[in-house]
Amino acid sequence: MFSQDTIVALATPSGAGAIAIIRLSGPEAITLANTKFKSVRQKDLTQQKSHTIHLGHIVDGPKVYDEVLVSLFKGPNSYTGEHVIEISCHGSQYIQQQIIQLFLRNGCRMADAGEFTLRAFLNGKLDLSQAEAVADLIASDNEASHLIAMQQMRGGFSSEIKKLREELLNFASLIELELDFAEEDVEFADRTQFITLLTRIQEVLKRLINSFAVGNVLKNGIPVAIVGEPNVGKSTLLNALLNEDRAIVSAIAGTTRDTIEDEISIGGIGFRFIDTAGIRETVDVVESIGIKKTFEKIEQAQVVLYLSPLAPTAQNLKAVTVEIEKIKNKFPLKTLVTIANKKDLYTTEQIASIESEIPSILFLSAKNGDGIETLKDKLLGFVNTGALRNNETIVTNTRHYDALLKSLEDIERVQLGMDGGVSGDLLAIDLKEALYHLGEITGQVSNDELLGNIFANFCIGK
Amino acid sequence: MFSQDTIVALATPSGAGAIAIIRLSGPEAITLANTKFKSVRQKDLTQQKSHTIHLGHIVDGPKVYDEVLVSLFKGPNSYTGEHVIEISCHGSQYIQQQIIQLFLRNGCRMADAGEFTLRAFLNGKLDLSQAEAVADLIASDNEASHLIAMQQMRGGFSSEIKKLREELLNFASLIELELDFAEEDVEFADRTQFITLLTRIQEVLKRLINSFAVGNVLKNGIPVAIVGEPNVGKSTLLNALLNEDRAIVSAIAGTTRDTIEDEISIGGIGFRFIDTAGIRETVDVVESIGIKKTFEKIEQAQVVLYLSPLAPTAQNLKAVTVEIEKIKNKFPLKTLVTIANKKDLYTTEQIASIESEIPSILFLSAKNGDGIETLKDKLLGFVNTGALRNNETIVTNTRHYDALLKSLEDIERVQLGMDGGVSGDLLAIDLKEALYHLGEITGQVSNDELLGNIFANFCIGK
Repeated sequence: MFSQDTIVALATPSGAGAIAIIRLSGPEAITLANTKFKSVRQKDLTQQKSHTIHLGHIVDGPKVYDEVLVSLFKGPNSYTGEHVIEISCHGSQYIQQQIIQLFLRNGCRMADAGEFTLRAFLNGKLDLSQAEAVADLIASDNEASHLIAMQQMRGGFSSEIKKLREELLNFASLIELELDFAEEDVEFADRTQFITLLTRIQEVLKRLINSFAVGNVLKNGIPVAIVGEPNVGKSTLLNALLNEDRAIVSAIAGTTRDTIEDEISIGGIGFRFIDTAGIRETVDVVESIGIKKTFEKIEQAQVVLYLSPLAPTAQNLKAVTVEIEKIKNKFPLKTLVTIANKKDLYTTEQIASIESEIPSILFLSAKNGDGIETLKDKLLGFVNTGALRNNETIVTNTRHYDALLKSLEDIERVQLGMDGGVSGDLLAIDLKEALYHLGEITGQVSNDELLGNIFANFCIGK
Repeated sequence: MFSQDTIVALATPSGAGAIAIIRLSGPEAITLANTKFKSVRQKDLTQQKSHTIHLGHIVDGPKVYDEVLVSLFKGPNSYTGEHVIEISCHGSQYIQQQIIQLFLRNGCRMADAGEFTLRAFLNGKLDLSQAEAVADLIASDNEASHLIAMQQMRGGFSSEIKKLREELLNFASLIELELDFAEEDVEFADRTQFITLLTRIQEVLKRLINSFAVGNVLKNGIPVAIVGEPNVGKSTLLNALLNEDRAIVSAIAGTTRDTIEDEISIGGIGFRFIDTAGIRETVDVVESIGIKKTFEKIEQAQVVLYLSPLAPTAQNLKAVTVEIEKIKNKFPLKTLVTIANKKDLYTTEQIASIESEIPSILFLSAKNGDGIETLKDKLLGFVNTGALRNNETIVTNTRHYDALLKSLEDIERVQLGMDGGVSGDLLAIDLKEALYHLGEITGQVSNDELLGNIFANFCIGK
C-alpha cells in the first residue's frame, strides 16, 4: 500500500476564496517545488530550513502562474512525516487547477482521499484512532463532537487501549512460553495477577462500549421531532431555538441558514430537528391515515416535542390530553415534551388549571423567547453529559465499537477458559484474538483493506 | 479610513476542507496570537523570526480549540505591510468559527471585505490598480483573464500610467511656476517638448482605451448564443466543445459540471454560451412570436451559432437559407456561424452542393468530434488576441476605462488650449484634471468613497 510517490492535492475547500493551499508530500516534494518556484530573493528551496516561508512565483519556463508563498517542511518534522510543501496561492479555481496540473505533469501524482493522513499513519506520526479523529474533527459541528474528536486526536483513547493491550501481550507471551515448556508443567504467568488483569480489561471495555450510546448521539446530534398541526408555531419555535446559534454562524460568509435550521447546538450539544411538516389540520395527530410519514420520522427521533394547538378553553384542553395519550401509547419509548405556545395569552389561573391536568406541560412564547431557555435546559437534560463533563473517553466510532465488542467477547472466553481450567494452548488462541481486535483500533494490527475502508471516507487533500 | 485595529477573517473558501486559514493583521497580531497559542516547543511567538512556521495548539485557558500551524510575518515584510499571523487549522466550520470568535473576544475586529488588501494599498505594498488585479486574479477562470490580471498585478499597467503622469506633472509644475512669474512673461516649460509629450500621452491613452473592447470580453468571456430547434444537437455540441475542459476541472472535487456547461475555455479564452432553449419546433426560428426571449438572449451575444436542422434533402436546404437570411437581417451586427451537424450522414457530393449554396456553412459531427476543432478555431478567430499575444497592456476594468476616457478629454482640452494660445492659468486647470484622473487609476489620488467602492467588491478575508 505504501508508495514512494510524491503526491499533490488541494488542501483547502474547493471554490473561490482569498487564498488556497496546494499541498505536496513525498521524497521529491521540495526538489519538485524548487524547479517550478522562483523566489523573489533568488532562494534555492532545497537549501532552506524546515518550517520557513518563501515569497515568489510559480513559473513554468516563461509562464508565470501566480505569486505565492511557499511553506517548507522537512521530513520527518511534517504532518505526513515526509517532505511537505504547501503553496499558498490566490484562491481562483483556475489558478488552483493550473498549479496542480503543473505538478501532475512534472512528477507528482494526484493524492488519493485521505492519503496525506494515511502517510502520517504509516510513518508513525499518528495511530489509526488518531487518524480517524482527524476526519471527525473536520466533520465536527458543535462543541461536544469537537471535544470528543480533539480528545481522540490527542491520543487519550489510543493510549488507554495500547496500555491494556501491552499488559495483555505480556501475559500472552508468558502463556506462549509455558506452551514451549508444556511437558514440564510450569506456570510463568501468575494466574491471580492474570485474572485481576482480565477483570480490569473487561471493566474498561464495558465502560468504553457503554460510552458509545452517548458518543454516537453526541457525534451525530440528538434527533428531535417537532410535531403539531400546521401554523401552530413550529417554525417560530425553531427560529427561537436557533436565535443564538445563527448570530454565531453569520460571522462567516457563505454559511447558509438552511443548513442550521435542521441542526442546532444547545449548550454545545448538537440537536437534529426532524421536519414533520405534513400533519393534517386536525388535533388528531396520531390517528390520521395520511401521516404515516410523520410516524416514520418520529420513529427516528429520540425526543418528541409536541406543540399543542392549546387555546385557553376547557374543551380544547380535553382534546390535547387525548392526543398526548395517543402519542404516548404509539411511541412509549420516546421522550415526550408537550408545549403550549403563546404563554402571554393565558392568565396565571388558566396556566395553573391546565398544569393540574397536564403536569409536564411547558408554557412558552416562541415569539418573545419566554420559556425557550427552560426548553433548552429540558432538552439538554435528556443527554447524559456526565462522561463529557468528566473528560472521560467516549467512543463515537462504529469501527472502534465493533472492535471493542469483539475484544470483550474474546476476553470473556479467556475468562471462561480460566474458570473452567482450559489448557494453555486454547487460552492462547482467544488471547491472540483479543490482541488482534484491540490492535485493530489503534492500527497496531492493520491490513490494506482496513486502511482502504477508513481513508476512503476522508476528503482528498487531507 | 485607516484604522490601527487588528483584524481577523477566514482567508480560505468557506465550507469544510482538509485545512482552513484564519488570518490576523495589525499591530497586535503577533502578541494577540501569542496569548492564545501554545507552542509544542514552548516557543514565544513574539521572539520568533519573520516567515517561520510553528506547531502548537490554539487554547483559551484549559480549553483546547485545535492543533494548528501558525505562520508568522513581521511587518513590513507581509502582505498587508503590518504584522500578520496565519493560523492553519483543521477545516471544520465549527473550528473556524470558534477560533475567529476567540480572537474577536480578545481584541480583534472582524475584517471588512477586502480590508487586508486595502491595508496593503494604504501601506504602499500595492497600488490601487494592482489591488484591483488581486480581485480579478481570484475571479479569473481562464488563461486570458488570468494572464491579464497577473500582468496588472505585477504592475505593468500601473508603471505605464505612473510614468506618463510623472512627466505630465513636471510640465504642470513648470507651468504653475510660470504663473508665479506671470508679470515677467517667462516660459519655463518648453512648449515644443510639451506638445510632443501631449501627443504621446494621447497615443498611449487611446491605445489603452481601445484595448478595453478586447479586455472586457477577455475578462468576462465572449458571449455566444447557440440557436436552433430542440433536438437538433445543441447540448451534444456543447458537450463536444466541453470535452477537453471537463477533464481538467474534474481533477478538483466539488467543481460541478453545471457551472462549466455555460462557460468554457477555448485556447485559453473564455466563451460564455447563452442558453436559447425555447425555440419552437419549426425551422422558422425568427418569425415566431413565442421566441422573444431568444431574441433578447441573442442580443446579448457577440457570436451566434446557428445549428441548422439540415438533412441531406434539397427542400430542407432552401428553408435553411431562408432562415439564415432572416437571422442576418434581424441581427446584422452579430457574427453568424451556420452549422450542419451529423456530417457523416452526407456524401461528399451533397456537402459540395450545400456549400455552393451556403459557402460559410460548417459541417461537423458533435458525436464523434469531427469538425469541432475547426469550430473552435473559428470562434477563436473572432477574438482579437494580438494584444494578448504581444503581451501588451490590456485594460479590463471599467473604472480604469472611465478614468482613461476622462484623462484623454482633459489632455485634448489642454492640446486645444495650446493650439489656441490659451493662457497658462487655464491650461493649468485642465492639466490638474488630467493629473487627477490618471492618479485615480493607480491610487496616487484617492478618497474614502473611491476606496470604499473598490474594496466593497472584494471578499472578506482578502
